[in-house]
Amino acid sequence: MNNNNYLPEEPIAAIATALAPSALAVIRTSGTKCIELIAQIFSRSNALLQAEGNTTLYGWITDGDEKIDEVIIAVYKAPKSFTGENMVEIFCHGGTSPVLSVFNLLLRSGFRQAERGEFSFRSFLNGKTDLTKAEAVKEIIESKTSEGRSRAAGRLSGNLEELLTSVKHSLIHTLGTIEVEIEYPEDEETISDAFDTTELKKTIEQLKKLSSSWKCEKLYQEGARIILSGKTNAGKSSLFNALLKEERAIVSDVHGTTRDWIESWVSFDGIPARLFDTAGLRETQDLVEKRGVEMTYDLSKDADIVLYLLDSRNPISDEDISFLETLISHTSTPVPAIVVFTKSDLLQADISKAKTLFSSCTIANFVSVCSKNGDGIHELGNAVKTLLIQGNSTERDQAGLGSERQKKAVDEAVLCLEHALFVYEKDYTLDAVVQDIEDALDALSAITGEVTPEDVLGSIFANFCVGK
Amino acid sequence: MNNNNYLPEEPIAAIATALAPSALAVIRTSGTKCIELIAQIFSRSNALLQAEGNTTLYGWITDGDEKIDEVIIAVYKAPKSFTGENMVEIFCHGGTSPVLSVFNLLLRSGFRQAERGEFSFRSFLNGKTDLTKAEAVKEIIESKTSEGRSRAAGRLSGNLEELLTSVKHSLIHTLGTIEVEIEYPEDEETISDAFDTTELKKTIEQLKKLSSSWKCEKLYQEGARIILSGKTNAGKSSLFNALLKEERAIVSDVHGTTRDWIESWVSFDGIPARLFDTAGLRETQDLVEKRGVEMTYDLSKDADIVLYLLDSRNPISDEDISFLETLISHTSTPVPAIVVFTKSDLLQADISKAKTLFSSCTIANFVSVCSKNGDGIHELGNAVKTLLIQGNSTERDQAGLGSERQKKAVDEAVLCLEHALFVYEKDYTLDAVVQDIEDALDALSAITGEVTPEDVLGSIFANFCVGK
Repeated sequence: MNNNNYLPEEPIAAIATALAPSALAVIRTSGTKCIELIAQIFSRSNALLQAEGNTTLYGWITDGDEKIDEVIIAVYKAPKSFTGENMVEIFCHGGTSPVLSVFNLLLRSGFRQAERGEFSFRSFLNGKTDLTKAEAVKEIIESKTSEGRSRAAGRLSGNLEELLTSVKHSLIHTLGTIEVEIEYPEDEETISDAFDTTELKKTIEQLKKLSSSWKCEKLYQEGARIILSGKTNAGKSSLFNALLKEERAIVSDVHGTTRDWIESWVSFDGIPARLFDTAGLRETQDLVEKRGVEMTYDLSKDADIVLYLLDSRNPISDEDISFLETLISHTSTPVPAIVVFTKSDLLQADISKAKTLFSSCTIANFVSVCSKNGDGIHELGNAVKTLLIQGNSTERDQAGLGSERQKKAVDEAVLCLEHALFVYEKDYTLDAVVQDIEDALDALSAITGEVTPEDVLGSIFANFCVGK
Repeated sequence: MNNNNYLPEEPIAAIATALAPSALAVIRTSGTKCIELIAQIFSRSNALLQAEGNTTLYGWITDGDEKIDEVIIAVYKAPKSFTGENMVEIFCHGGTSPVLSVFNLLLRSGFRQAERGEFSFRSFLNGKTDLTKAEAVKEIIESKTSEGRSRAAGRLSGNLEELLTSVKHSLIHTLGTIEVEIEYPEDEETISDAFDTTELKKTIEQLKKLSSSWKCEKLYQEGARIILSGKTNAGKSSLFNALLKEERAIVSDVHGTTRDWIESWVSFDGIPARLFDTAGLRETQDLVEKRGVEMTYDLSKDADIVLYLLDSRNPISDEDISFLETLISHTSTPVPAIVVFTKSDLLQADISKAKTLFSSCTIANFVSVCSKNGDGIHELGNAVKTLLIQGNSTERDQAGLGSERQKKAVDEAVLCLEHALFVYEKDYTLDAVVQDIEDALDALSAITGEVTPEDVLGSIFANFCVGK
């Protein structure tokens, strides 16, 4: 999508619900003529043409003499609709065949299939939403836990937009002060007295805090990757199942084969995490098993946490230490690791001794668990959560960033403002300070979409769902 | 669900769309108090309480101070709604987390999770639909091809109900004639002159035709099972892919492994069919492959058609004949089979010779194809369709039966009426004839639901989608 040559009046249609057998499905349409076009394939044409906005009508979608499906139609009149244009939503029966039959008829009746995010794009073009809210919609749809949804809902309700507006007001105020100084210099003093930098410094701190919020928000959005590793029979599968039960599996179906790995989405107190149960590590000659071991190493590369399991009854071997070292030392920054002693009901491991033995590796924590009776599972969950958050927590009601794009823009604004401060303190010209602050304002305006290059706009909406 | 002790006023809620990331999702609620209950968790309570039926409202679902999701709400007032009760539909963002967050809040706010088909059940209780239409809704949702959907839409629009009503009127007319005869016998003639049986005979024929429609309708509803079999390298996978392309795969993702079988839904001119590509048959010692061969035999047991493939360049062996014989002779009625000569571009098979060689098996047809250039693929599709329909075709606009339950009831009515005719022709009492016709009327009324035992009602709706 592209601002140039884009025809917002063009009628578009999209299937807005998942295509699977279900009671209902929603097909969404938008465009100046969409009501008239649908009236041609609706059993109660006149009722539809005369319908007021925000009303629903019962009837049949018909193709000439053939009845396609019994539907409810919702009518929205511009500008009171999601896109700000005339809109019609068709609630037909769910299931591939009725939905596709109605949708294909729409395409034959003058509608074009909507591109991803095109409804949101029109909503943005028509001033119904800003970019932070539009991106929040995508986030809500993709959120994996209730906590993730709640944070996105905050952005959708406008808390990020409000924070950015207040920051921009403060910068505009500073700009005003400086420009007065440029136009009416009272005396020959150096420019370093031209304005008080306190407010500017406060703004920089505010933006830095906002920028750092992304790490935590990203965690809630995209989730963490946690690898269960350890030698054969260390109790990986039992712990995997115990964690699924204690921390609530988000997706119930577990896939993969034991030879490679098994994974499931789990929620650690609202933080979504993909938990991988890997093949047991051992020096092996069996080709298939060897591939499993290599797979574990590969998985650990992108891991946020490696859990290394040890049977509490067995002594810690050199092999264990070298396995764990290899798993976490892919780069100079080791992957955070927790050593987990399993089967604690049979023998309680000597953790202080273990700490000494593992002193060559960077281990964040040592935990003892029994997957059978649940001992220590909750503590392990807490250790995982603490390690994931690592001082990056943001409060749920505090505005946080919702995308990589937003973080880049905030970081750019911070750079500009720090440069402004540097220029000012070095006693360069006030014009350079003004330029820096204006650049920062542009960067911040790009977040909400007041100033956003077209290619950026296109790439934002291209990541959306069809029908949104 | 059960007519006794059933509280139709109880507020129920269900997620009516498929639970997967998508632009929108619909949560459906019904019950006398549903508007008031939702007003408590809606940002614009007063607007909702004052809303008229068939209108939509924009707002937020809120849990105390927390904003859950931005939604559109559709309000329906009794009796003008799907269930005939007050209803509210919530259009929230699609995706597991927002949908479950809103739904769980509804359950905490006084709603009970609806059982399968409970909305349709209330609709039936409140006289908004008869059973043939309710069952047609389920059919539409599950229809696999446009042709299947179209046939169900006919029933939903009432063509089956109309046919049944006209049959019942005719029977009631006959009953009237007989009862006049019983009360005012004009003379001592035998009862065999009491009424003209022509109309009764016509009705029986009409019902028999209706009953036979189920075979064809069932085919469109449930689809056929077609097995591709033959020796290793007979060209099964190539033909499988060629058929997927020519006959349009309904479901694009093909699953299974080559060792067992691969399957895909394909539409043969509107008839949905599950096409199975099986392991190559050969006398083998390899355990895994042997299991594949056994699997092919197992699959052929429930097959509607077995396609036996032969490489046109190879002579037909005794092994081929014995393989095919085993595949189709599970019971005394052989599975319909088509012999398919593949790779016809390399050599044209001698079909008349093949017919002689296969004379010990019942073969419906012999076809030559080339999967590479498409020769004969269309002809094979036609041969498959002809074999599936086998004189059981019903016209799309002709009323047909939509479920096994309906067929059983029609068959029962036919039995009663044939018995009535027998009793009449044997000169038994007219009272016995009256009883038989009344039994037939009861059976037919059960189809639409005027007279239907409660346990039958329960089992009908229990097969529905949640939210329907």
